[in-house]
Amino acid sequence: MPDNITPWVRTLSLSAPSLKDNTADTDRLLRALKLRLNTDAIYIDLDLVRRLPELLRQCQYRIRCILWKDRLQWQLLEVTAAADTRIAAGLAVDLGTSRVELRLLDLATARILAETAFANPQEAIAPDILARVHFAEKQDGLRELNRLIVNSLNNAVAGLCNSIRIEPQQIYVLSVAGNTTMTHLFMGLEPRYIIREPYIPAVNHPGIQRADALGLKVNPRARVLIFPNIGSYCGGDLIAGILYSEIHKKPQTSILVDVGTNAEVVLGNENWLVACAGAAGPALEGGVTRMGMTAGPGVIDQISVAPDTLKFNIHTINDLPPKGICGSGVIDLAAQLFRSGMIDIRGKLVPAVCGPKVKKIDGLLHLIVVPAEKSADGSDLTISQADLDSLIRSKAAMYTILETLTASVGITPQDLQSFYVAGTFGAFINPQSAISIGMLPDLPLDKYKPLGNSSLKGTALALESDTYHAEIDQIRDRITYLELNVNQDFMNRFSAAKFLPHTNAQLFPSVKIVQKVS
Amino acid sequence: MPDNITPWVRTLSLSAPSLKDNTADTDRLLRALKLRLNTDAIYIDLDLVRRLPELLRQCQYRIRCILWKDRLQWQLLEVTAAADTRIAAGLAVDLGTSRVELRLLDLATARILAETAFANPQEAIAPDILARVHFAEKQDGLRELNRLIVNSLNNAVAGLCNSIRIEPQQIYVLSVAGNTTMTHLFMGLEPRYIIREPYIPAVNHPGIQRADALGLKVNPRARVLIFPNIGSYCGGDLIAGILYSEIHKKPQTSILVDVGTNAEVVLGNENWLVACAGAAGPALEGGVTRMGMTAGPGVIDQISVAPDTLKFNIHTINDLPPKGICGSGVIDLAAQLFRSGMIDIRGKLVPAVCGPKVKKIDGLLHLIVVPAEKSADGSDLTISQADLDSLIRSKAAMYTILETLTASVGITPQDLQSFYVAGTFGAFINPQSAISIGMLPDLPLDKYKPLGNSSLKGTALALESDTYHAEIDQIRDRITYLELNVNQDFMNRFSAAKFLPHTNAQLFPSVKIVQKVS
Repeated sequence: MPDNITPWVRTLSLSAPSLKDNTADTDRLLRALKLRLNTDAIYIDLDLVRRLPELLRQCQYRIRCILWKDRLQWQLLEVTAAADTRIAAGLAVDLGTSRVELRLLDLATARILAETAFANPQEAIAPDILARVHFAEKQDGLRELNRLIVNSLNNAVAGLCNSIRIEPQQIYVLSVAGNTTMTHLFMGLEPRYIIREPYIPAVNHPGIQRADALGLKVNPRARVLIFPNIGSYCGGDLIAGILYSEIHKKPQTSILVDVGTNAEVVLGNENWLVACAGAAGPALEGGVTRMGMTAGPGVIDQISVAPDTLKFNIHTINDLPPKGICGSGVIDLAAQLFRSGMIDIRGKLVPAVCGPKVKKIDGLLHLIVVPAEKSADGSDLTISQADLDSLIRSKAAMYTILETLTASVGITPQDLQSFYVAGTFGAFINPQSAISIGMLPDLPLDKYKPLGNSSLKGTALALESDTYHAEIDQIRDRITYLELNVNQDFMNRFSAAKFLPHTNAQLFPSVKIVQKVS
Repeated sequence: MPDNITPWVRTLSLSAPSLKDNTADTDRLLRALKLRLNTDAIYIDLDLVRRLPELLRQCQYRIRCILWKDRLQWQLLEVTAAADTRIAAGLAVDLGTSRVELRLLDLATARILAETAFANPQEAIAPDILARVHFAEKQDGLRELNRLIVNSLNNAVAGLCNSIRIEPQQIYVLSVAGNTTMTHLFMGLEPRYIIREPYIPAVNHPGIQRADALGLKVNPRARVLIFPNIGSYCGGDLIAGILYSEIHKKPQTSILVDVGTNAEVVLGNENWLVACAGAAGPALEGGVTRMGMTAGPGVIDQISVAPDTLKFNIHTINDLPPKGICGSGVIDLAAQLFRSGMIDIRGKLVPAVCGPKVKKIDGLLHLIVVPAEKSADGSDLTISQADLDSLIRSKAAMYTILETLTASVGITPQDLQSFYVAGTFGAFINPQSAISIGMLPDLPLDKYKPLGNSSLKGTALALESDTYHAEIDQIRDRITYLELNVNQDFMNRFSAAKFLPHTNAQLFPSVKIVQKVS
């Protein structure tokens, strides 16, 4: 990450007016700023102009300016006495479908001041993107969804500011990235045509908006940079992730995978970028299995199965009694079950191997992962054959997306030099396990690089320096979006990927296939 | 005046979206506009973006755009179906200290739609600039003055729109010029330091503001171009006048005189411009004599005196019985009195010549201009020696301003090639009379050119084409302001000019001096 941040906070001493230099207050200030910033365009809001005559004379022309720069010109957002030491903050927002993350920065230094996150309250009335777009089509539906996200953001901002004892009015710049639909709902834009062929958003480049026009309770002059999208299914959050990963600057070809509600994938290098998105997420986020849940205390995140005894060795977050399993735990589990022969290459439970660990419930085979006496709530934690089938579909979809995308540029997943994995998925996943079940390609493990919340981190970068602003647009314009919905190869590849690790085992030379016979 | 107006209203047919061209609605529109306007920067307000998805589909991508351009970029102010034929209007406002004039234009054609004017309601609480600045210093004084001008503008706009059956929301652009203080009061800016050494306005370049931020009830997205000022006493109205007169484009040196509450004078050519302002106005506007009034029905605007009989030949506006005299009438009167020997070279009434036309009232000589039996209200219309003294001071001030300004560049008033006279003063004045009393220099009469309300006309030009916007700033930057307050020569010149026509009669070769002896 470059360390050349833009100093948005500047202290200036203006020459005092005289009969020989009777330049007006505003023009005197702008003249000095233009010289300092080496620019000939600075915009100043009317309400600041109104304050200048008294302010300049009170502080003897020694002032502190809070600035921002859009693509065309600098914006003067605040003027106070030079002695003012109050923090000028910037807020980065990763606007997720299910989770919204916020990071508060000091605009003067780019230092992180505080972070918080909250569950997107829209989820309660419409769990996924499709449901939200349909909800938005109801009478006042869009207004309601917009109100929910804006209000919850305002509440989170108030709490975040309170935690470090600043006022929301001290937030002068926001940077917001989300998928295309979330960005539309946040801006109050009609999302109806995003989900209908030919899949047209209301806007690709939302640009820089005023916080007050968006209903945000921060400084009324605050500007909001909203990340652009490439199309209906390739949003600003992915562009923020690319910005942070820097795959667009590297000579080698690498890939960035962000598994959220959808899997969004970008492949590329300094010369080109190809992206696609597809539904591969739910099982991988722990959202499908009955015992699945997002990572948290007491949730199983690692499992190993002893090859001989088939005894489960379970690790939970904070070492609490197990109450469920997260995405990375499910992948570990599947990998271990497959290695031990408890499931076959189609992902089907093998009762002869599993022995007493399987039981039928409502006519469906279930594997007992944690017996009742060891679980947090005193009941068996089980995974059903249906859960496993769902996982197989998800992992197949994931691999197919990777395969289709790489094939579109004439390479294979195995050719990749670096494999960036974003999000909590990337933070917790065991790449070895993911390779074992054929979800991720069989690369040397050191090529897998977890990025954390790269979307939030990339969003925050936009607050650090205006050099990123042009870069964001450049990334956006360089991406070729591959529409999986209309791709012919996809279904064939998907069928071949529904085996463990794959129909073509040569793609996974490191994976040993064990077939135990009862 | 150039006839190349900018067509602010454009009709466009956009290509319909498809899987092969899934550009978003807003970006699709901006792409087409950028191509048409040959620009890469167009700003669109969020509320228009919000309307686009439904609008574009309803009108099959055939749209009408209302545009504006500031110095940096185009602004998209309205999008409707192409079939929409409603007028998009622009409003020019000449913000005078005592009178505000409005002109409504069709933005598509620059055709004048309607005009109106009203007395500045601030006059009732503070008659002149100085009084207004002092009033603004009181508690809530600035807010009150701002409220008065903004409310009266809104009322005038409503009436003007009603007269041609359009809605105020159809006004998308405003162009406003006024003196520096009036501009400050209109924008709600502290005027306190304008009148105090070193005479510093809050702003020189107000630039383009949003109508809603100024409290104007027009289209909420409307933009307001506010003319820049050069200093405390040289305002945007003068720059508008220069723009209209085009003295800044001519190779020959000419002068522009705008007599309002102050006399504002600009001298220059295509290479340089010098301006100054001074108090020369009241008597010339008919504001000093007891019988003086602004031009209107029944007001004396021309007078001649028969050389032999000394009989007054009076003309009134609309040929109604006389009720008073306007500025041009006073100048005619003084010229005729001087030519007939009824006043001497100091402007003093000569009783021996005036005979029964003079009488003493309260110990002061008065000349009966219209006897009671012929006047509108049945009483004598008289002009006193004090009135004449005041006129002499005004005319001397006027000539001194011209002489000081021309001297500052090494020429004399007699060297001028063209003499533009703005305002009602310029429309009604008889240059021959003004020369006779030594108020205006002794130039061939065809060099005197009345401009009408050049300030309003120049303000309106800014609505016609964006080429004027840069020109306005260029004019502003080229003007050298001469501060009469601190000029040493002024008082000497003023003393010499207090004679009819002047102490140095050689400056007025065309004026015959008649000294009748009783």
